[in-house]
Amino acid sequence: METINNYIEANKDRFLDELFGLMRIQSISSIKEHKPDMYKAAKYWKELLLESGVDKAEVFETEGNPVTYAEKIINPDLPTVLVYSHMDVMPVDPIEKWDTDPFEPQVREGKIWGRGADDDKGQGMMHAKAFEMMVKTGTLPCNVKFMIEGEEEIGSPNLGKWCENHKEMLQADVILVSDTAMISADTPSITTGLRGLAYWQVEVTGPNRDLHSGLFGGAVANPINVLCSMIDQMVDEKGKVTIPGFYDDVLTVSSEERELLGRAPFSKEAYKKAIDVDELAGEEGFTTTERTGIRPSFDVCGIWGGYTGEGAKTVLPSKAFAKISTRLVPNQDYQIISELFKNYFENIAPASVKVEVTPLHGGQGYVCPIDIPAYQAAEKAYSDVYGKRPVPVRSGGSIPIISTFEEVLGIKTVLMGFGLESDAIHSPNENYPLEQFFNGIKTIPLFYKYFAEMSK
Amino acid sequence: METINNYIEANKDRFLDELFGLMRIQSISSIKEHKPDMYKAAKYWKELLLESGVDKAEVFETEGNPVTYAEKIINPDLPTVLVYSHMDVMPVDPIEKWDTDPFEPQVREGKIWGRGADDDKGQGMMHAKAFEMMVKTGTLPCNVKFMIEGEEEIGSPNLGKWCENHKEMLQADVILVSDTAMISADTPSITTGLRGLAYWQVEVTGPNRDLHSGLFGGAVANPINVLCSMIDQMVDEKGKVTIPGFYDDVLTVSSEERELLGRAPFSKEAYKKAIDVDELAGEEGFTTTERTGIRPSFDVCGIWGGYTGEGAKTVLPSKAFAKISTRLVPNQDYQIISELFKNYFENIAPASVKVEVTPLHGGQGYVCPIDIPAYQAAEKAYSDVYGKRPVPVRSGGSIPIISTFEEVLGIKTVLMGFGLESDAIHSPNENYPLEQFFNGIKTIPLFYKYFAEMSK
Repeated sequence: METINNYIEANKDRFLDELFGLMRIQSISSIKEHKPDMYKAAKYWKELLLESGVDKAEVFETEGNPVTYAEKIINPDLPTVLVYSHMDVMPVDPIEKWDTDPFEPQVREGKIWGRGADDDKGQGMMHAKAFEMMVKTGTLPCNVKFMIEGEEEIGSPNLGKWCENHKEMLQADVILVSDTAMISADTPSITTGLRGLAYWQVEVTGPNRDLHSGLFGGAVANPINVLCSMIDQMVDEKGKVTIPGFYDDVLTVSSEERELLGRAPFSKEAYKKAIDVDELAGEEGFTTTERTGIRPSFDVCGIWGGYTGEGAKTVLPSKAFAKISTRLVPNQDYQIISELFKNYFENIAPASVKVEVTPLHGGQGYVCPIDIPAYQAAEKAYSDVYGKRPVPVRSGGSIPIISTFEEVLGIKTVLMGFGLESDAIHSPNENYPLEQFFNGIKTIPLFYKYFAEMSK
Repeated sequence: METINNYIEANKDRFLDELFGLMRIQSISSIKEHKPDMYKAAKYWKELLLESGVDKAEVFETEGNPVTYAEKIINPDLPTVLVYSHMDVMPVDPIEKWDTDPFEPQVREGKIWGRGADDDKGQGMMHAKAFEMMVKTGTLPCNVKFMIEGEEEIGSPNLGKWCENHKEMLQADVILVSDTAMISADTPSITTGLRGLAYWQVEVTGPNRDLHSGLFGGAVANPINVLCSMIDQMVDEKGKVTIPGFYDDVLTVSSEERELLGRAPFSKEAYKKAIDVDELAGEEGFTTTERTGIRPSFDVCGIWGGYTGEGAKTVLPSKAFAKISTRLVPNQDYQIISELFKNYFENIAPASVKVEVTPLHGGQGYVCPIDIPAYQAAEKAYSDVYGKRPVPVRSGGSIPIISTFEEVLGIKTVLMGFGLESDAIHSPNENYPLEQFFNGIKTIPLFYKYFAEMSK
């Protein structure tokens, strides 16, 4: 641990500089005009890993954004860790809510601020720098491979195929990912479950042009009114999604396991206060933690239609749109859900409008067993740094590619996340505490050490 | 009629030039940055009326946009006609749907194209040019006053007070307005009823910031889902508005009058085809014409919230907004309705969100009796030009200031509109057929003639 701490102390400013360089690249994967930035980010990662000590590094083309792959094979008989991270980030809208430029990172109040500070440039950088430390101090106990992709925030549409095509190269004993959060800075936790995701854009068309709401209002179906009604019909008064078959494949979690999950520290009042709401909401019969951990959800992520400018324009619009997503639990297949939603949404549309449903992306959920060596190595590493045994938790978030790794490569993933809920990932003012960043760099080499020992 | 036709023939190109000059001014009253354009338009109208032959013209300040007033008093013993029009226009969004620049008017396919071509620069110009013709040919049989305001499209918030302050100056025997449509180019009609209007912006706030839809989805109320549900609750499955008390003041129209209104030619198939919908919708128990003519309506004019950009962003947004309007029938008071809606909307909000309702504008409905001399003069004037007696109709649209004129000035208004449904007012590609424009200029002097005769 002393070696680690000394190395970090001597190099911390450079680590931050390297992270800031990465964060300045506007690698927003969901916006086409940022395509050149994806290549910049891929090249940045390649150089970064080469300087950190890999034997070789390469930028691979896919049908979408590039993947940076690198490796250091010290001994074929030693276990191999495959590190996965992503170089792409979410859009920055609403930009006016950022206190500082999302792509001009800075440190203030003990935190790194900017898009990607946590998700996942900050957390990805911890792995590069932990690896560098082990190489430079001669303490690397495993072979290491890095796979940094550029489409995680849009559902990794091309990485599965790329993995298929590079199965041999990617062979490893475990995949290590830091792209999740801990319960709090005092309560380390390891995410053992992820929700799946299905996401659609819907378009409701009424009349062929915007109409005068006086001359036509009351006689012609208004696509916004209709869309609102259709969305309202998707969830019943008990908070259950009404799509027929939606819950068919949801695994019932045993009361023992629910009891265990319920032990994770959780304050409803603190949770409500943090987001400033008077009441929580959700599916009847489940706690807040269960609602995000073991139950699927239905959210409209965006809606628009008609006149949205200043003042009052009286119009009966031609079209209304929404971006709709469901989070799915393990065993729910996103492709089946995607079809079920599409059919249902088209079915409940009244004859007075036309609807179009476009699936945008999706992915399966994932569960990590807590009795495998990699999980136990992670547990010990956190315990050393945080002085507490980490709690296993089911996260509400989705990293669709994790289940694909298992399907395609046959490798389990351990989710060693160091984010905090207050990091505001996907939101304005994303941030990442310096302490978590450096604790991550300390914890990762301990994982390698214990994993190598346990794999003997 | 020959004098009229000859004068139009000799001056038609100039008439169009003068209209185009007015249409090039971007006098959008609902967008603050166009305030200077309102003054440009007011000055343009002043010069136009002076050149058309008024004795005096003046631009008056109000607390909002200016009013251009002008008059020509030829003999205090003769009847006086007060012409009302508005110089302001609607916004041009969605701008990408316009085939040509909305503020660079042009003639093609026998129509004038551009914002304001009909509503109300085109229809207002007919009055200026009909007046000019009467002055220049020595055939003006009445005193004439012009009042051109700049806030009609935002509900004329300041004109009522301005009228109060200038009651003496505005005294007249009738108010003449061209700001409505005819049934079709072959079927002249005069609007005898207008709906009232109440309009609100609503804001629904859930969490204090955009949240990750995975980490929080299912446990925190999504303001878009909630807004959709609240909007859906405003209208029941029979198409009735559910706000308690909403229909209390709606006058029941007698079966005789409904029968009479039902005689106006109407083809459901043609109506559906024109707007390209498979089915119409609306309040149970009423025909399409009744739904817009004698019944109130509830329309969402705009909605927005969350991520509306390209691709898939998974977010549980902090806020959702909508612009909501109701069209009201005579005897429904918009201020009472405005309060009823606000209370109801706030009441049905779940405790998991906060809502804010801002009334944006409103106005009362209006009915014009068909047995007054001014209506009968208009009827004869249309009959001369179109060869058919015009049909009295109740329009679904609103011109809130019309009922204010009656309240404040004690003067009835005759709505001599020459628009057509295909003019796409308030929409992209607004247009106005040249034939209607010139027919208007022909019909108006005949109204003056018959009105002067009947008033003797």
